[in-house]
Amino acid sequence: MASQHPIIEYTSQASWAMIEDKFSPYAKETLAKLIKFYEEEILPARKLAHAQLPTDEVQRWKTVIPVIEELKVKAKKLGLWNLFLSKAHYPEHGVPLTNLEYAVMAELLGRAGHMASEVVNCSAPDTGNMEVLAKYGSPEQQKKWLIPLLNGEIRSAFAMTERHVASSDATNIRTSIRREGDEIVINGRKWWISGTGDPRTKLYIVMGKSDPDNKSSYNQQSVVLVPTDTPGITIVRPMKVFGYDDAPEGHCEIIYENVRVPLGNLVLGWGRGFEIIQGRLGRVKFFLVEQRLIFFRRPGRIHHCMRAIGAASEALDTMLRRVTDPSRKTFGKYLHEHGAVIAEIAKSRAEIEGARMLVLSAALQIDKYQAKGALKEIGIAKFVVPSMALTVVDRAIQAFGAEGVCQDQELAKTWVGLRILRIADGPDAVHIQQVGQRELKRVPGLVKKAAELAKREKALFAKAGIKRARL
Amino acid sequence: MASQHPIIEYTSQASWAMIEDKFSPYAKETLAKLIKFYEEEILPARKLAHAQLPTDEVQRWKTVIPVIEELKVKAKKLGLWNLFLSKAHYPEHGVPLTNLEYAVMAELLGRAGHMASEVVNCSAPDTGNMEVLAKYGSPEQQKKWLIPLLNGEIRSAFAMTERHVASSDATNIRTSIRREGDEIVINGRKWWISGTGDPRTKLYIVMGKSDPDNKSSYNQQSVVLVPTDTPGITIVRPMKVFGYDDAPEGHCEIIYENVRVPLGNLVLGWGRGFEIIQGRLGRVKFFLVEQRLIFFRRPGRIHHCMRAIGAASEALDTMLRRVTDPSRKTFGKYLHEHGAVIAEIAKSRAEIEGARMLVLSAALQIDKYQAKGALKEIGIAKFVVPSMALTVVDRAIQAFGAEGVCQDQELAKTWVGLRILRIADGPDAVHIQQVGQRELKRVPGLVKKAAELAKREKALFAKAGIKRARL
Amino acid sequence: MASQHPIIEYTSQASWAMIEDKFSPYAKETLAKLIKFYEEEILPARKLAHAQLPTDEVQRWKTVIPVIEELKVKAKKLGLWNLFLSKAHYPEHGVPLTNLEYAVMAELLGRAGHMASEVVNCSAPDTGNMEVLAKYGSPEQQKKWLIPLLNGEIRSAFAMTERHVASSDATNIRTSIRREGDEIVINGRKWWISGTGDPRTKLYIVMGKSDPDNKSSYNQQSVVLVPTDTPGITIVRPMKVFGYDDAPEGHCEIIYENVRVPLGNLVLGWGRGFEIIQGRLGRVKFFLVEQRLIFFRRPGRIHHCMRAIGAASEALDTMLRRVTDPSRKTFGKYLHEHGAVIAEIAKSRAEIEGARMLVLSAALQIDKYQAKGALKEIGIAKFVVPSMALTVVDRAIQAFGAEGVCQDQELAKTWVGLRILRIADGPDAVHIQQVGQRELKRVPGLVKKAAELAKREKALFAKAGIKRARL
Amino acid sequence: MASQHPIIEYTSQASWAMIEDKFSPYAKETLAKLIKFYEEEILPARKLAHAQLPTDEVQRWKTVIPVIEELKVKAKKLGLWNLFLSKAHYPEHGVPLTNLEYAVMAELLGRAGHMASEVVNCSAPDTGNMEVLAKYGSPEQQKKWLIPLLNGEIRSAFAMTERHVASSDATNIRTSIRREGDEIVINGRKWWISGTGDPRTKLYIVMGKSDPDNKSSYNQQSVVLVPTDTPGITIVRPMKVFGYDDAPEGHCEIIYENVRVPLGNLVLGWGRGFEIIQGRLGRVKFFLVEQRLIFFRRPGRIHHCMRAIGAASEALDTMLRRVTDPSRKTFGKYLHEHGAVIAEIAKSRAEIEGARMLVLSAALQIDKYQAKGALKEIGIAKFVVPSMALTVVDRAIQAFGAEGVCQDQELAKTWVGLRILRIADGPDAVHIQQVGQRELKRVPGLVKKAAELAKREKALFAKAGIKRARL
Repeated sequence: MASQHPIIEYTSQASWAMIEDKFSPYAKETLAKLIKFYEEEILPARKLAHAQLPTDEVQRWKTVIPVIEELKVKAKKLGLWNLFLSKAHYPEHGVPLTNLEYAVMAELLGRAGHMASEVVNCSAPDTGNMEVLAKYGSPEQQKKWLIPLLNGEIRSAFAMTERHVASSDATNIRTSIRREGDEIVINGRKWWISGTGDPRTKLYIVMGKSDPDNKSSYNQQSVVLVPTDTPGITIVRPMKVFGYDDAPEGHCEIIYENVRVPLGNLVLGWGRGFEIIQGRLGRVKFFLVEQRLIFFRRPGRIHHCMRAIGAASEALDTMLRRVTDPSRKTFGKYLHEHGAVIAEIAKSRAEIEGARMLVLSAALQIDKYQAKGALKEIGIAKFVVPSMALTVVDRAIQAFGAEGVCQDQELAKTWVGLRILRIADGPDAVHIQQVGQRELKRVPGLVKKAAELAKREKALFAKAGIKRARL
Repeated sequence: MASQHPIIEYTSQASWAMIEDKFSPYAKETLAKLIKFYEEEILPARKLAHAQLPTDEVQRWKTVIPVIEELKVKAKKLGLWNLFLSKAHYPEHGVPLTNLEYAVMAELLGRAGHMASEVVNCSAPDTGNMEVLAKYGSPEQQKKWLIPLLNGEIRSAFAMTERHVASSDATNIRTSIRREGDEIVINGRKWWISGTGDPRTKLYIVMGKSDPDNKSSYNQQSVVLVPTDTPGITIVRPMKVFGYDDAPEGHCEIIYENVRVPLGNLVLGWGRGFEIIQGRLGRVKFFLVEQRLIFFRRPGRIHHCMRAIGAASEALDTMLRRVTDPSRKTFGKYLHEHGAVIAEIAKSRAEIEGARMLVLSAALQIDKYQAKGALKEIGIAKFVVPSMALTVVDRAIQAFGAEGVCQDQELAKTWVGLRILRIADGPDAVHIQQVGQRELKRVPGLVKKAAELAKREKALFAKAGIKRARL
Repeated sequence: MASQHPIIEYTSQASWAMIEDKFSPYAKETLAKLIKFYEEEILPARKLAHAQLPTDEVQRWKTVIPVIEELKVKAKKLGLWNLFLSKAHYPEHGVPLTNLEYAVMAELLGRAGHMASEVVNCSAPDTGNMEVLAKYGSPEQQKKWLIPLLNGEIRSAFAMTERHVASSDATNIRTSIRREGDEIVINGRKWWISGTGDPRTKLYIVMGKSDPDNKSSYNQQSVVLVPTDTPGITIVRPMKVFGYDDAPEGHCEIIYENVRVPLGNLVLGWGRGFEIIQGRLGRVKFFLVEQRLIFFRRPGRIHHCMRAIGAASEALDTMLRRVTDPSRKTFGKYLHEHGAVIAEIAKSRAEIEGARMLVLSAALQIDKYQAKGALKEIGIAKFVVPSMALTVVDRAIQAFGAEGVCQDQELAKTWVGLRILRIADGPDAVHIQQVGQRELKRVPGLVKKAAELAKREKALFAKAGIKRARL
Repeated sequence: MASQHPIIEYTSQASWAMIEDKFSPYAKETLAKLIKFYEEEILPARKLAHAQLPTDEVQRWKTVIPVIEELKVKAKKLGLWNLFLSKAHYPEHGVPLTNLEYAVMAELLGRAGHMASEVVNCSAPDTGNMEVLAKYGSPEQQKKWLIPLLNGEIRSAFAMTERHVASSDATNIRTSIRREGDEIVINGRKWWISGTGDPRTKLYIVMGKSDPDNKSSYNQQSVVLVPTDTPGITIVRPMKVFGYDDAPEGHCEIIYENVRVPLGNLVLGWGRGFEIIQGRLGRVKFFLVEQRLIFFRRPGRIHHCMRAIGAASEALDTMLRRVTDPSRKTFGKYLHEHGAVIAEIAKSRAEIEGARMLVLSAALQIDKYQAKGALKEIGIAKFVVPSMALTVVDRAIQAFGAEGVCQDQELAKTWVGLRILRIADGPDAVHIQQVGQRELKRVPGLVKKAAELAKREKALFAKAGIKRARL
């Protein structure tokens, strides 16, 4: 008889059966602990966290939500902390969990929105920023920024994206980083810088052009640590996403005007910015599309995919409750008894199960072969999962009618978060191209086998004395 | 040689060729005038209208946007006013335009969002409310409310939807309407009441239960006119739609607590509320689904569909400009030269053209056979068009990347407006059921023809001397 | 009150309302006559025609189906003959019907498979061949081949396609055509030559390479008339389509080995083959895809699309009868009462109506602006219609279960005929590219309008005294 | 470093990584042996097997294909025999392979069509028939029929389906089975009886109604063994599937007219027919749809799904070779460089990988919990896989153009085999309903959790001193 881990209520018996034997006892135990914490602490606090965020346009950007801070203390105490940071990659600061093991945890967290990840100190953009500092930061930089981040005492932002710059090509970045004596001077305009609005955010990790004339376009960039209170920084406005401002984090437009920091704030070295974002954005990868290099964003990260599976699962559960709600009967029938609702539920379940297996497969490949050995699996997960999750959530919205699109349910917000993923985590089209190109690499092997086959066929026809009909 | 009306730049030569000979000279001229007004006045004012709406949470609900009021004056002077109100149906107040003729105008207006319709006094929910008052209002009611509405001096709301009541079944409404002497007393809670927030809104048309014990469930309701400044009315909150509050109109939740109006504010007669919403919500129709009555919302209106076609067309034009923008070249290539963008454009064009023909067909059927003779065509338009438009707009959003989801483009807002249509204008599933049921009505005719055919086949086989092979 | 033409039982009231006023009295009358003939003669003979085709592998290729020949006599007598050949294009031999008028007739005929078109002498490949001979044939060629074809006395084939040659690029054709004294000598191998199997087929119109060194790749080809009994011709085998051999017509592979015909059998002139297929394959068009010429097949023909709409409509009617068949009840319920069948019916109806309007639009554009002025509309019809029809027929097959895939219903055969259309009438991808490229041509106009708009916006902001917020 | 089993060339590294540790050494070794046999013997013989089947309508039904018989001998010698029969379920005759282990082998075999399964004695309908005899047959019956079947000496058919009987409800079967003295007399008409045409088929397992008045509709049926040479049996015709006759097996229509067999040919017992098909058709299951029992076909079998994955994989490999074939360049470009081909390849890969994981999951669930504990997973596999495979194969067909639909490629035949699966293995709609109903069973658990959550939320709001805003 198979063991019954509580996770199967949130994922499925079938997917757990596939991976159970790949989980360490520590991972199983941590997962069980996380489920308990999720049920008893995180989920019950979700609406309170909303309620503790002021609606006032000014105040909402100045607020540290109390219940989140309380939960962070509890989570840290329970050892449910920094789960994203794998010891295999970050021996000093990491947690002994594989990508596969964390994948399941991330899916669970993804059911409760951004706040759940934050509570266990696993929320973007801090996760990537901690990885940068852990990998490339000097001891001083680590002491000043990494430790407080790992402790959840501060938050951070990664300032790369610029308006009017094709985001798929990082070499286009225009923000100027130049040296003046012992200082670094930054001038430029960034937008969509997530986390900017949060009063706890103390650090911008800024990428800019430090050596625009360098003949290698991959040595022109540098990365600099900029405290948020440095003079010369103006937050222009929060970018809204389908009407949401995502306060208090926000995704703001920022002007850097003669912003000065000491030379010691340079990360890794002058002109080594590209190398850093390669590390941060998931072992960045360039690949050939039609004889040209396309910048491929975040191949190594499947965290978003995991959370998206969780979001879709939660939406399906919500829909199941709705369509069986006795008070929603019309003409004496449950909603699920009208028309095509059952079929939508079945398809959603099938799509979630298939997508989850794809993400778990990708996670296992990363554990086995590093991100660069798992690019096809990662690419598949990245273009399959968000679209799948959007479809599932959209069905749930439709089942709820007007209530589904408004602030009384999480569904509309969830949908929007998934929609932006199809852009922010690399456009679908880029992942699709990448996977297609990788498939083409199988062709020489296939051609060789086809040639061997033809030889064998010919011999067989000859032996059978049948003149091979020209096809 | 075919004539070249300027509308073909906004629709297509092919669709215009189909309908041109069905347009009166007046309609052609009015359409040309509307195009000019759209290009020179409406569209240029769109961003200003946004800018004139304060971002402050309180002020945005108290604002009358100046540029819209200015344009209303101009539109009225040009005779571009109340275009939705067909003289054929409303001889006293109507405009000599058919549904087909107005359909094309509504598509054009739909390109520029809600504001364009408002400028020519054709925006919901006033349109339906004016129809109610024109058809069922007493002379006093018409003088007091209809004339100012027709003049664009005031706005109005229609208070029907209630929380926890399956919106597809109007008989479930719980708000109490009772008579006390010369007064009518209203108690209840409504939500999603569009227009509530607007400072210009002076009238609620409230539907409630006036005779809950009447044995006919269609004689239990009454409709009452309630001035917005009547004591006892509390606006609880605006319902947000995917994060948008749609100020200043809004879609609010409202409490009516012992709200008293004179008996003369009753519309049509006690217990005749159902009859009225039948008229308002487009010749309301009940139809049989699995032996039960389902309330079918707004069959007679295809205005939303027309506007949705316009929104999709505008999105496609916007996408076309983006993917050919020379400043957006990546690696020396236009966006449209990468991957599948061209295919998306071609499919979008095909889908828009097909959907437009469906809506125009439905409009023509309404003109010829009234709404009740065009229910299949209307149903088809209602489930095909919003989904089609959502797909087209989503592709445009994807082409724009992060800029597509934010406040710098209209696309995200447009998408949300279309998404809510799949619920507000009757859920897709209801329209699909209705069309399917109507198709089933063709069966007896098909069966009769099949029987005749079988007889003829038998005779032919006999004559040919061939024993009919048992199939 | 609108008139009620019998065609609305086979198409729809809504589509007829759109086009009725574009039909001449002659066309209306002819259409009514065709409907009667279809109901009373064509349709009843369909199964007999199947039964009169032997199953024997040899005999089935030697058979002239009696009932078809009988019906041809009747059709000719009724004036239901050569309806495809528009007098506007072929004054001498044509029929006074527009493309739009014929489109509706072709849809009706498409309901009953290939045989219905043959009965009124409107079946491929003869239709295109008659057009070639009417347009380019010498008086002698016309007398010898065109007149018997117009009379339905013989049939013909068009021998162009070759194995291992990318069918989308006609310049690749390898069959050699060379002159030897007063003779033309043909050597080559063709496949998929429709009509080859038919004992009535007396003529091959062969396209080959006559001047391979000509510097213009469009002057290298010639077209030659080859009697089917000319020595040196070997029919290798019929190509099967998803298991069907399509006897007696067939689509055969043919070898031409030193086939000799008199010089007078050359059509139009030496090296003018391309010009001819431009005429035959519907005003052939080359267009630019990624800076390269792609051969665009059959843009001017929408006959196949029209018939495909008919096939889909017939399948839907068949499905409607099946799901309401009382003898098919399971557990006391009609099939249509289980699950999602009603939704499939509604969607099929909507898709057919939309697609039909697209084809009718394209036909009207051809009538107004010639094929070259209707390329976008034709392209849209060509990629939309076959896929739509395949979906509708597939749903009908599923409703029939095992009976739907076998010889007892026409559905499987219909599906296969539609599937090959997505290849034979030009691959979907080519039509999609073409439509997309045409949309891109709208960009300069859009950009100009956008510039004007920006100017007007700026002026309005200035006038309103609002500093235009940088978006 | 992960081990590199040769199977990853035919499936994927990612799916193998998931299941490798669940394979016994014996299974790994057998799989490797099977791959070698597949490459060196089975695949090279595929075209020869086609060539050895006569085209003559009569002879093709009398032929035992020599190369298949030769390969059967080799396969048996290698121990690649009866792989489908799991020792866990059939200790006496079975092979020590789990469902999961066999699943991977079945996928491989599915790449080469029906013939590959036959060569290793794993082809339908014999597989199910052997299971029936192994489970329910008397020692005499086993000796006479099971042993020769297990040895591949004879073949067999299962005669259940009847025309005009809704195949989803086995209680409707009309064929009469009655006792006369020591004999059983059978009268009835069956169709779609696979294997009937094969000269090696010696046994019909006939299901019929033996006790039509029994008050339990599940005790009315019996199953009888009928030698194919028993007098009174007439094979009416082969049913064609999209034009294919599937000779020599075929799926014939059969008349049983006073067919007499000894009483000893009764299986299990009088009136126990239902019990048997429950066993045969995969632990048959009845489930509730809208308060009624629907017969659910073959839940326990996922063999077809496994083979369908293989067919799709093979089609994708074939497509990859085609679109990279240098001789297929048009205008100097490979096919894959035009348009959307790369995207189709990427999507096909993703869909195959996802679907495979679903089938493997289902197989693992069967191994762990028996079929009845894996019904949801089986249902998902059954409605997801065939549609997915059809899409992938259809894309490959389109890439091949006309060659893709004809007898020169396996694609069209493969497509048809997959299409019939959507009917023969239970209609999609039934599996979808079943999965949906199973999801609904999760509702009570979800409701309970929601109630606990609400309690916790309330407590938290109270503790935070925030009056819970009415949502």
